[in-house]
Amino acid sequence: MANIKPLGQRVLVKRIEADAISAGGIVLPDSAKEKPQEAEVLSLGTGGKDDKGNAIEFTVKVGDKVLISKYGGTEVKVDGQEVLILNEADILGIVG
Amino acid sequence: MANIKPLGQRVLVKRIEADAISAGGIVLPDSAKEKPQEAEVLSLGTGGKDDKGNAIEFTVKVGDKVLISKYGGTEVKVDGQEVLILNEADILGIVG
Amino acid sequence: MANIKPLGQRVLVKRIEADAISAGGIVLPDSAKEKPQEAEVLSLGTGGKDDKGNAIEFTVKVGDKVLISKYGGTEVKVDGQEVLILNEADILGIVG
Amino acid sequence: MANIKPLGQRVLVKRIEADAISAGGIVLPDSAKEKPQEAEVLSLGTGGKDDKGNAIEFTVKVGDKVLISKYGGTEVKVDGQEVLILNEADILGIVG
Amino acid sequence: MANIKPLGQRVLVKRIEADAISAGGIVLPDSAKEKPQEAEVLSLGTGGKDDKGNAIEFTVKVGDKVLISKYGGTEVKVDGQEVLILNEADILGIVG
Amino acid sequence: MANIKPLGQRVLVKRIEADAISAGGIVLPDSAKEKPQEAEVLSLGTGGKDDKGNAIEFTVKVGDKVLISKYGGTEVKVDGQEVLILNEADILGIVG
Amino acid sequence: MANIKPLGQRVLVKRIEADAISAGGIVLPDSAKEKPQEAEVLSLGTGGKDDKGNAIEFTVKVGDKVLISKYGGTEVKVDGQEVLILNEADILGIVG
Repeated sequence: MANIKPLGQRVLVKRIEADAISAGGIVLPDSAKEKPQEAEVLSLGTGGKDDKGNAIEFTVKVGDKVLISKYGGTEVKVDGQEVLILNEADILGIVG
Repeated sequence: MANIKPLGQRVLVKRIEADAISAGGIVLPDSAKEKPQEAEVLSLGTGGKDDKGNAIEFTVKVGDKVLISKYGGTEVKVDGQEVLILNEADILGIVG
Repeated sequence: MANIKPLGQRVLVKRIEADAISAGGIVLPDSAKEKPQEAEVLSLGTGGKDDKGNAIEFTVKVGDKVLISKYGGTEVKVDGQEVLILNEADILGIVG
Repeated sequence: MANIKPLGQRVLVKRIEADAISAGGIVLPDSAKEKPQEAEVLSLGTGGKDDKGNAIEFTVKVGDKVLISKYGGTEVKVDGQEVLILNEADILGIVG
Repeated sequence: MANIKPLGQRVLVKRIEADAISAGGIVLPDSAKEKPQEAEVLSLGTGGKDDKGNAIEFTVKVGDKVLISKYGGTEVKVDGQEVLILNEADILGIVG
Repeated sequence: MANIKPLGQRVLVKRIEADAISAGGIVLPDSAKEKPQEAEVLSLGTGGKDDKGNAIEFTVKVGDKVLISKYGGTEVKVDGQEVLILNEADILGIVG
Repeated sequence: MANIKPLGQRVLVKRIEADAISAGGIVLPDSAKEKPQEAEVLSLGTGGKDDKGNAIEFTVKVGDKVLISKYGGTEVKVDGQEVLILNEADILGIVG
């Protein structure tokens, strides 16, 4: 998966399973799980430029745990693995 | 919850329960409650820049009680707690 | 209510009851009333800046009677009172 | 009605009854009438500024008869009279 | 109709009846006719200005036969005649 | 058809029949044909100007075979012939 | 297919069949296959210019394997082959 380079201001993330972040000790059956909203940043895009031609820097970095909306981004499936490519602007926050 | 850093001009808020701000003395059963529209600012985002590259300052600050639209923002649930990440521009006003 | 500060170019207004501005002498029962379209400005927002960084001034002032569209703005209810927060750009006119 | 000042680039107009502009001599019963599309300008707005801060002048003036789209503008009713507040840009033309 | 001055970059046109431009000799009954797409320019608008304050010139002139989309513009009816006011940008081409 | 001058950045094209570009030798009955996506440029528009007032040049030229989306452009019918007026930006590519 | 030159910032790509990128050894029957999301860049467009008139360079190059959304781009069929023309901005990432 390290060999996918998102274009522009996009980042590649992988959802973190909900039970890994659940506070309680109850294990829900698979169909009852909510889609997790936490994800890990796998790689940053090729970047972009602002109106003056200056490179726009990313705020997140590889390895960051981030919060994403339930429906954000585009799901892609490569080599059997589901990952998500989304614009950095669609990342809601960083879990520090 | 202190360890969530919203991205850009977003802020993290937590809704204040309606009965805490209700004027009358009647306690409504849970299903009859309206979604509260008051919220408390928990943390500010990483900030943004205007077209000239100057940092845009936040108008609200941590601890402010703010008014938000009933349907504004994106709900996220981390460690079992429901919070809301929304753009500062979607905060209607500050309860002073 | 004086303790609500709208954000940016928003203003806080309160609808004026229709019978207070009705020309005729007929008192309509409550269910037949149209939503009033006149409102009084209660407070001005924290303001905004134009593209050059200059403060944008408000055209309306506190106490102005203004005309608003039937569906404009966001209704908020604080301390049991219904008020409306809307952008100044959504005020149609001032009743002088 | 002279005491209503539209905000920004808006103007206040009053529709001219269709039979006043009908060419033929046939008087239609009220339910068969089309909504008139001619209107008279009652007052001009507080004005606006372009991106350079220069005042934008109105092209129409008080008393002009103008053509408006059937569905343009926002109807407001003050003191029992129906008038229309619309952006000058939504006026199609001037009947000279 | 000479006394209607369109506002801004709009022009006033009148549809040319389809049978006047039909190549064949078959006369269709009225209900089978398509709405004609050719029109004649009757008058030009009051004009507009670009971002630098320079006047924008019209490309079409009075008398030009133009092609318009079937659904373009706003129909207005004055003195019993149906004409069309549309933005010059919505004229597809000039029939030279 | 040479006497139609498209306005602005538009071009006038004529669809090329699908069977003329089909690779195989099978002739489909008329109702089974897809709308062809290849077209020939018949004439270029009057042109446009960028934000600095410089003329924008066309990338395609008269006689070019171009690829257009199935649903792009506005169909017009003049002298019994169906042609298409579309913005140059809606041409997907040139068949060289 | 080498003789198609996309216009502007568009690129021409060809989808790579799903089974060619599937990790497992199971061959799915045709109707069960998902539309592949990997594609190969066949040719780059004529290019574009930014607001200052400088040429915008492509980030992808001919031969790159790229990830595209399932529904991105416009399908065109020339000489019996299905290819896709899409804006470079709609390419999600490069498979390195």
